[in-house]
Amino acid sequence: MLVDGQPYRTIWPHGDSVRIIDQRHLPFRFVIAELRSVSDTATAIREMQVRGAGLIGAAAAWGMWFAARESGGDESSLRRLAETLFATRPTAVNLRWAIDRQLAAIQSAADPVEAAHASAMAIAEEDAQACRQIGEHGLPLIRAIAETKHDGKPVQILTHCNAGWLAFVDYGSATAPIYAAYDSGIPVHVWVDETRPRNQGARLTAWELSRHGVPHTVIPDNAGGHLMQHGLVDLVITGSDRTTRTGDVANKIGTYLKALAAKDNHVPFYVALPSSTFDWTARNGITEIPIEQRSGEEVRWLDGEDAQGEIIAIRLFEEHSPAVNYAFDVTPNRLVTGLITERGQCPATEEGILQLFPECRAGRANSGT
Amino acid sequence: MLVDGQPYRTIWPHGDSVRIIDQRHLPFRFVIAELRSVSDTATAIREMQVRGAGLIGAAAAWGMWFAARESGGDESSLRRLAETLFATRPTAVNLRWAIDRQLAAIQSAADPVEAAHASAMAIAEEDAQACRQIGEHGLPLIRAIAETKHDGKPVQILTHCNAGWLAFVDYGSATAPIYAAYDSGIPVHVWVDETRPRNQGARLTAWELSRHGVPHTVIPDNAGGHLMQHGLVDLVITGSDRTTRTGDVANKIGTYLKALAAKDNHVPFYVALPSSTFDWTARNGITEIPIEQRSGEEVRWLDGEDAQGEIIAIRLFEEHSPAVNYAFDVTPNRLVTGLITERGQCPATEEGILQLFPECRAGRANSGT
Repeated sequence: MLVDGQPYRTIWPHGDSVRIIDQRHLPFRFVIAELRSVSDTATAIREMQVRGAGLIGAAAAWGMWFAARESGGDESSLRRLAETLFATRPTAVNLRWAIDRQLAAIQSAADPVEAAHASAMAIAEEDAQACRQIGEHGLPLIRAIAETKHDGKPVQILTHCNAGWLAFVDYGSATAPIYAAYDSGIPVHVWVDETRPRNQGARLTAWELSRHGVPHTVIPDNAGGHLMQHGLVDLVITGSDRTTRTGDVANKIGTYLKALAAKDNHVPFYVALPSSTFDWTARNGITEIPIEQRSGEEVRWLDGEDAQGEIIAIRLFEEHSPAVNYAFDVTPNRLVTGLITERGQCPATEEGILQLFPECRAGRANSGT
Repeated sequence: MLVDGQPYRTIWPHGDSVRIIDQRHLPFRFVIAELRSVSDTATAIREMQVRGAGLIGAAAAWGMWFAARESGGDESSLRRLAETLFATRPTAVNLRWAIDRQLAAIQSAADPVEAAHASAMAIAEEDAQACRQIGEHGLPLIRAIAETKHDGKPVQILTHCNAGWLAFVDYGSATAPIYAAYDSGIPVHVWVDETRPRNQGARLTAWELSRHGVPHTVIPDNAGGHLMQHGLVDLVITGSDRTTRTGDVANKIGTYLKALAAKDNHVPFYVALPSSTFDWTARNGITEIPIEQRSGEEVRWLDGEDAQGEIIAIRLFEEHSPAVNYAFDVTPNRLVTGLITERGQCPATEEGILQLFPECRAGRANSGT
């Protein structure tokens, strides 16, 4: 998407190296970093210079290009380098998937380095195209709401966390329909939940939208219910970190509260996701999806820019008081109006999902998209 | 309540002056400040050295004692000083009420200064006693839950914002039943919503509870729904800033989201309030209660303690992104299991409320408690 008029992706090859937007510095600094090795790539993933399911997958794919170069055709060396990459964020589904796909491409190729490069290009491109298609399939929803507005007022969309292009290679999931609508001239305004404790909404989603020119306003996570009660939200779109075959959605902590408020106020609640987030083996999100518990220090400490423009961390409350930090919650499918995938929209039900992904009826198969 | 073993109130007379806990420094510094004049008192209220409905009322009452001294019996001077106090937080209901009550006491007295002192003592004491009674009336709720736990595990109570003793003269509203339970030996554990954007939960409620010794954990506002889904919350108790005669509750922004989650998970949701928060003229909280919109800069900037122990403010996101800041939201009575007042518990319905406050049936009368 655009950054001050210039099109960017989150990751791209540049000669013998790979460039990324170093997201640790956003929103206060726009820093491009250069990766030249497996070690650089592992650091970038581990230190969250890159983050988000799609982007982690693409970064790992490019890391395997470096691995093909560094291993010099030695199989055990290649596997060791693959393990180095995998160990950076072991619970990231796309990381394992991208590494395995690259291992297969490299091992069957006459020119492993060339094959790894081509496969990394393909993985990144597929991620971008899946998101672009999510945008196309979500656009009619926003257009339909816009057509009910006779006063030229914008379609009001609330989103939570960052399911934007910064989490993928381009477009994003939840943001893809928003960018598609904005780019086709539909007036939109986005309510951006700040998304405590890590504030990905205030830091990343707001930055993305501002740089592309999309009107938006940052709100505390507490505010969405009030806005909906007063008719100030037409549509909620969030992303998903993991989706059961029945349509339960595990997403950033707090998503469930917004889904409840949407239901209570008859506001449509959509989840936009590439089908790679489906867990075809899970049926009950609340009982079957393990929720990562992160350090309470992420709740206690927060960083930002002081009045002198220095980035510093402050402690928000005392050590006397413990804190807990659940990273995700599960929104039951009964609260989800519909899913927007790269193949189209569907109801958040097993039957609805399987009509779009019939090859997954059997259970454990992966959709392959 | 206790601060490290020592009993404190939020405000108390001390010779010719009045002492307060200067809440701007909490939780990082425990500072006692001295008020010696109307001007000191006005500053303390305006600068939020004291805050919270009950405490603002008590501070204004003591301010009128200074006004009686400073006016030297001159009626117009007294009124001018009363106006100075009133202008500090013009929307605070208790402020106007306390000033008016003091004006009446002073004007009918042989010794205005002595009368103002006695009346300020009475106002503060009534506030403390109303909160103490809320604690007594809420205690059976917590005890009943404790009796269902056969494993010695604590009763898990979630609260939002600070409806603690720091917001009143003593005990608090939402916290009063919690302190009563803790002090009578019932094991309790409190989930403290940090309460963005001003973080009164993390800063004030957590401090109060830790200093009195009550086990608690700070959570992001996003986490409550997840905790309830997993059976980790037995009871929600919040305060109220304004309550309709039908039981709709205007309270800190985000309260409504917790009430929705409580309903969805069959968790009882109680609101504890001194009857002074009833607005006997309002029937529909969502349409009739105006919601204060504060500066978006309170969302953008946050202060805390840096690694060197300095208190500093940081900016959380860029100036490119606007922010809005609604201070309160309204929880409809259908989501409220019951109210806990100084006269007892009642359902959040007009009939339930009027059975406790029959003198308010006519409409505009104030309950006088």
